[in-house]
Amino acid sequence: MPKRLEASTHLPDTLAAIVGGANVLVDPAELAPFLTDWRGRYQGRARALVRPGNTEEVAAVVRACLSARIPIVPQGGNTGLCGGATPDESGDAVMLQLRRMNRARALDLENNVLIAEAGCTLLEAQAAARNAGRLFPLSLASEGSCQIGGNLATNAGGVRALRYGVMRDLTLGVEAILPDGKIWSGLHTLRKNNAGYDLSNLLIGSEGTLGIFTAAALKLYPLPQKTMTCWLGLASPEAAIVLLDKVQAAFDSRLVAFEMICPLAGELMRRHFPELSLPLDAPWSVLCELSDCSHASDLTAAETLFAECLAAGELSGAALSRSLREQEAFWRRRECISEAQKQEGDSIKHDIALPISRVAEFLRRIKPLLNERFPGIRHTAYGHLGDGNLHFNLSMPDAAENERLLDNEALVNRIVYDCVDELGGSISAEHGIGQLKREMLCRYKSAAALSAMRIVKTALDPRGIMNPGKVLPQDIELSPLSPGHSPASGRGEQCPLLEI
Amino acid sequence: MPKRLEASTHLPDTLAAIVGGANVLVDPAELAPFLTDWRGRYQGRARALVRPGNTEEVAAVVRACLSARIPIVPQGGNTGLCGGATPDESGDAVMLQLRRMNRARALDLENNVLIAEAGCTLLEAQAAARNAGRLFPLSLASEGSCQIGGNLATNAGGVRALRYGVMRDLTLGVEAILPDGKIWSGLHTLRKNNAGYDLSNLLIGSEGTLGIFTAAALKLYPLPQKTMTCWLGLASPEAAIVLLDKVQAAFDSRLVAFEMICPLAGELMRRHFPELSLPLDAPWSVLCELSDCSHASDLTAAETLFAECLAAGELSGAALSRSLREQEAFWRRRECISEAQKQEGDSIKHDIALPISRVAEFLRRIKPLLNERFPGIRHTAYGHLGDGNLHFNLSMPDAAENERLLDNEALVNRIVYDCVDELGGSISAEHGIGQLKREMLCRYKSAAALSAMRIVKTALDPRGIMNPGKVLPQDIELSPLSPGHSPASGRGEQCPLLEI
Repeated sequence: MPKRLEASTHLPDTLAAIVGGANVLVDPAELAPFLTDWRGRYQGRARALVRPGNTEEVAAVVRACLSARIPIVPQGGNTGLCGGATPDESGDAVMLQLRRMNRARALDLENNVLIAEAGCTLLEAQAAARNAGRLFPLSLASEGSCQIGGNLATNAGGVRALRYGVMRDLTLGVEAILPDGKIWSGLHTLRKNNAGYDLSNLLIGSEGTLGIFTAAALKLYPLPQKTMTCWLGLASPEAAIVLLDKVQAAFDSRLVAFEMICPLAGELMRRHFPELSLPLDAPWSVLCELSDCSHASDLTAAETLFAECLAAGELSGAALSRSLREQEAFWRRRECISEAQKQEGDSIKHDIALPISRVAEFLRRIKPLLNERFPGIRHTAYGHLGDGNLHFNLSMPDAAENERLLDNEALVNRIVYDCVDELGGSISAEHGIGQLKREMLCRYKSAAALSAMRIVKTALDPRGIMNPGKVLPQDIELSPLSPGHSPASGRGEQCPLLEI
Repeated sequence: MPKRLEASTHLPDTLAAIVGGANVLVDPAELAPFLTDWRGRYQGRARALVRPGNTEEVAAVVRACLSARIPIVPQGGNTGLCGGATPDESGDAVMLQLRRMNRARALDLENNVLIAEAGCTLLEAQAAARNAGRLFPLSLASEGSCQIGGNLATNAGGVRALRYGVMRDLTLGVEAILPDGKIWSGLHTLRKNNAGYDLSNLLIGSEGTLGIFTAAALKLYPLPQKTMTCWLGLASPEAAIVLLDKVQAAFDSRLVAFEMICPLAGELMRRHFPELSLPLDAPWSVLCELSDCSHASDLTAAETLFAECLAAGELSGAALSRSLREQEAFWRRRECISEAQKQEGDSIKHDIALPISRVAEFLRRIKPLLNERFPGIRHTAYGHLGDGNLHFNLSMPDAAENERLLDNEALVNRIVYDCVDELGGSISAEHGIGQLKREMLCRYKSAAALSAMRIVKTALDPRGIMNPGKVLPQDIELSPLSPGHSPASGRGEQCPLLEI
């Protein structure tokens, strides 16, 4: 844990000298919106929020904090779901906000690259690409607010990862400030580059614990031609997996998105967004997007496939969008699920990944396990079935019972994640670890992996100033481990908190 | 540099106890084939070559070497082009060969994953996929000999990276032995996984300096349907770039490969492989592969595009393969270039990446720069234009003059790489750094990146036993650097050897 020097009481002045007084917020009222996360789950404190205007200023801020041993908490659009961008309650931290760094530094159409600063919102990056006749394919429900820096820090995924990959796949190189305050200029527009260790991917997904992104070189793609968006009704997740296999066999890389929506998600959508009526009435739905269907025969192929599935009873209904407006309406329904759940009340959220073949098995197995301990528990299970990424959120219909469920979160998580782990899945598919899952990570990650993570964190950030307490527990041993030292001989030993 | 303990004289016995006496080679005649690289450029010595049969044995070998402070040099198919798998001349090293570990541990068709051991040849992995009706898309000239472990260590690229990506893009997770002898079981079949730091990508491309791969979970794809392979004749690399742009606009992700072949490469091919006659007589050639062209209109689209280019004088000839046999013949011509050059004699090789838009500019700029110092110098420039990866190899037609050129390799490299660097390129696209480019890396990589690489290497391998002297110079400071310590204030300061 960083030891604060008393000299740091003058830190705001030092920071103001770097970024200008107007860009150092210390007034509690001004700080307030940044001190709690989107879900309202974490509430932290901070000594200041700093808004640097360029890379050199970010580096100078990091060096000032390093020499004063002050922790730094970077925050993008504050849309994270694991508390990764919220400071702890000590009030020690300086928060870093890069929204002023929102330029598209270069739009290189010859090489299909956009160099965007970390403070660009995802929507701004998408728009910069689209205005130049290109696609930046990352797409999330929070794209209007989330920022490129946060997308990198959490290795964001979203709805089109099936075809285009996740943030790390879409990034050619990054510019970042390392924990020692050095500017690492790893921006390049190359498609192949094997010159040295892959530091980009080490930083991407490390949630601000190994460095702070200031810019990224992002891959652009041709705008997809002739997109078909289909809303399909099904009886079960098993049927959705069978359908996925058939659509992939027929459309291969032209299958862009394959989203599954469970009965309860549909119900909450109807309750809280009644204006967005569902195109079909079916227990389970799939929103499927195909692109580059420019041949008339592609439409026929899709229609034939769905007609066969209807005839075989594998589908209960199918609606193909007939206009761009209808496509957008289909997507709005998919994207309001998160907000509909929020309006319904608190829930225990899980962003899990499973081998695609085992998604249905997971849902069959987990239901009785949860019901046994929490009779009447209800779940939403929806998300990116095409890449095995499910959002699995638990709540009770009754408010008082829900409170009791929330009090038992550790037990609920244990039941869910043990099952995920047994099926070869991951406790975090695309939201990261943040504060929410750092103890769980100790349980489900092998001792060898945790030890290597600790070694890397300690070596690159020996004073532990970079977003402490995120991803790895804050009380990790911060002096280098001796070779061969094993921090944990088995799973869960470091997390007695999680024992049932 | 590792300090050898005298007790290590009994190491072969210790190793024999782990892997069996028959799997510890110490006889110089038996060791000889492993002590020189494919190009015959490096000649090393080793105390033994060990052939473990499973993951636990590899881990035990690493622990034995760690406790005796003996360096380990892993070697795959020994097809590397940068000396990354050849030990130094000290004779200290133990070599590690995993060819006995050549099982396909699992072929999971539901999730499209092949779990292959590190000792599988690439051809064996491709065949395991193909026999199950799937594609493992990595494809290199050396695929009959190179091994999955080496493909991971060097982040191999090859001819189909344009559509399917390089080895890191094709790998979901790995199993590896870390420098402390721990087994890290990072194998999984998930498409999204954000649980902790991305250790897989840190190890991939680190050329055995951070760990030893024992197995990998590899992504499989549907077999491509209706492939069209085209041999196109052009006047210049400028024309090839214009053509690339047009083919990409028309076929997008269905463009699988776009290989450029220069006049001299064509000449050497005709000289050393006269049986493989070229389909066209043109100064420059492009071998272009399109897949999933199942509509009759795709063939028409390709024919129309090439006919327009012919009419506009942008192409001088076009041959479309009419059979699988003709496709294979086209590819054999492309793949014999490396061997044709070898038969022609030694050359100074460069595996470079450039922004695609600047490939032609590089060739225009570099010619006079080299001719000025080495009149009559000739080059081959060929390779994966579609991803900006050029193999640029220099030689003199006359044997004695060629010897003199080879003696000036440092100067030649300096001229070539300075030009590459000025154009935003990389000194290694897909072959890695090995021994060949480790000093060059110091010149062209920023101080911040080198410092971070050193910190990571020192932290994970504090005794420096993992393939020492590869990627980073062996005499790096092996104690952890103090925070803020800058190992080099500018480029090239650590490499006086390279000063002209």
